[in-house]
Amino acid sequence: MEIASIYEPIREDLLRVEESLRVVSRVDLPWMSDLLEHTLKDAGKLIRPALTLLAAKSYRYDLEFLLPVATAVELLHTATLVHDDTVDRSSVRRGKPTVSSVWGRDVAVLLGDYLFAASAELVSTAGSLRVMSLFAQTLMAISSGELRHMFTIYDLGQTRQHYYQMIGGKTASLFSSATEAGAIVSQAPDEAMAALRDYGYNMGLAFQIVDDILDFVGDETEMGKPVGSDLIQGTLTLPAILYLERYPEDDCIQRVFEGGGSPEHLPQAVERVSNPAVIEECYAIALDFCSQASKGLEALPDNACRQSLLDLAEYAIERKR
Amino acid sequence: MEIASIYEPIREDLLRVEESLRVVSRVDLPWMSDLLEHTLKDAGKLIRPALTLLAAKSYRYDLEFLLPVATAVELLHTATLVHDDTVDRSSVRRGKPTVSSVWGRDVAVLLGDYLFAASAELVSTAGSLRVMSLFAQTLMAISSGELRHMFTIYDLGQTRQHYYQMIGGKTASLFSSATEAGAIVSQAPDEAMAALRDYGYNMGLAFQIVDDILDFVGDETEMGKPVGSDLIQGTLTLPAILYLERYPEDDCIQRVFEGGGSPEHLPQAVERVSNPAVIEECYAIALDFCSQASKGLEALPDNACRQSLLDLAEYAIERKR
Repeated sequence: MEIASIYEPIREDLLRVEESLRVVSRVDLPWMSDLLEHTLKDAGKLIRPALTLLAAKSYRYDLEFLLPVATAVELLHTATLVHDDTVDRSSVRRGKPTVSSVWGRDVAVLLGDYLFAASAELVSTAGSLRVMSLFAQTLMAISSGELRHMFTIYDLGQTRQHYYQMIGGKTASLFSSATEAGAIVSQAPDEAMAALRDYGYNMGLAFQIVDDILDFVGDETEMGKPVGSDLIQGTLTLPAILYLERYPEDDCIQRVFEGGGSPEHLPQAVERVSNPAVIEECYAIALDFCSQASKGLEALPDNACRQSLLDLAEYAIERKR
Repeated sequence: MEIASIYEPIREDLLRVEESLRVVSRVDLPWMSDLLEHTLKDAGKLIRPALTLLAAKSYRYDLEFLLPVATAVELLHTATLVHDDTVDRSSVRRGKPTVSSVWGRDVAVLLGDYLFAASAELVSTAGSLRVMSLFAQTLMAISSGELRHMFTIYDLGQTRQHYYQMIGGKTASLFSSATEAGAIVSQAPDEAMAALRDYGYNMGLAFQIVDDILDFVGDETEMGKPVGSDLIQGTLTLPAILYLERYPEDDCIQRVFEGGGSPEHLPQAVERVSNPAVIEECYAIALDFCSQASKGLEALPDNACRQSLLDLAEYAIERKR
């Protein structure tokens, strides 16, 4: 399934989100606009703002309020990426060098702060205290998810439950807020709002699980990063956790973790974790979250937007990068 | 003048701000509460929340709304300090090791993000969109001020105007928002609100100028940091700028800046910049900002709170740390 056809019902409005992102980079200070342009142009797939718009489309769809909120969702996401890349020392993001690799980590910290603020400022123009508070809670969830992650790197004791908590904070909370914000701004009925929030959360979990699967079995060229990056950085994701459940006596992962990420032991660990039975089980779990996401949508009007949300859940599983 | 006597009209309410800060650190995750407690307990002089409360005290003073806003002002300040210490690689703050020196810079980045979010979340409970938007704009001003700073380190071409812009963003914007937020929440009349906002801004400029003077002539033990820290880090503050205006041919600062901060040339540069005529001129400028701050307060009712604000402007000049 092509993402462009899934986005069809909101295609033009998503172009306006891109335009709003360009407006954010137009500031009077040349060094600042360089930084913002580098960070905001050629945005990714814009899944999160698309979720906001698709969630709202069946209700009171007023772009005056939805556009700033959808743009703010992407800004919040971008701010967290800028800080993540700083913390993870990543050099490439979306095919471009990261801010921290071009301008240094200190500039990246402050630019991320500026983007958080720009996101909040934009949300405030939509005039909903409830959405502003949702954004604040989301950033609390994301940063505590990231901190949880940070305190458990190179820790072999992580279970599925720890993993779900971590990705719930790191990823699913923002997916969930993207749909919920769309529902709030468009004054969706309570039942639909709850369904859209849960859809976003479950979709976010599935999305992150597939990301973590691709880190083991994906194509390096398509992904733009080497396989096994999570393991080498000490992050135990679902495939590794399920592998350790099946083969607790195998120390292939432990050997990578010892000494803070030993590259010489990585190929063997990646090969073993990529075991078809493990990967199949991971996909089954992701699919299960997607089914939960889709099931809730039965409460929504049967139209092209609901279909796009259903298709997006399928896309989350099928995608290769 | 003692800060405790200046705070007298709001003494008990400031204790409640401290209690609210303690509540923020009480979270269920032990690693998270350790981090938060380390950062939030033994807060500094609480000047910013004091400004919020003093600004509000002459009007509709409702602690249900003022307490979360005053606490959020301090949280926003703390979040920026955590990121500043990370960027500046400072190891001590308020007599305690910094988060980045104990837990590492990556944890400090994410903790700062969490504190920004906690601040926004707390503000949202006061129910004022205007104050939420003010907070967002303040963080934009602070982070762009810090970025401006970052792009001009080791640059001898900085003028007074550049300096005022930088400290306007870095410091004065939050002082100004602290008083303005108090005025908004307490529904102060427009004229008083403008006076309180300007008071905060001018006080913030004076406060930062005195900080920058003390970096040259202060007592190392009282300040808890070595003299000349700004110069060694490549920051041209008012004393250095005025010195260069007077003695453009002297290359003592240039020698410190060359090679990214040469400690062997620091003592001579500090001694020369500490020239009494230069320091006197800096104090005269700070005093002038304080007078502007105080003058505007004539629009306010003549009571103990106005007196405290006037005294605080004096304290900003007299303080030794």
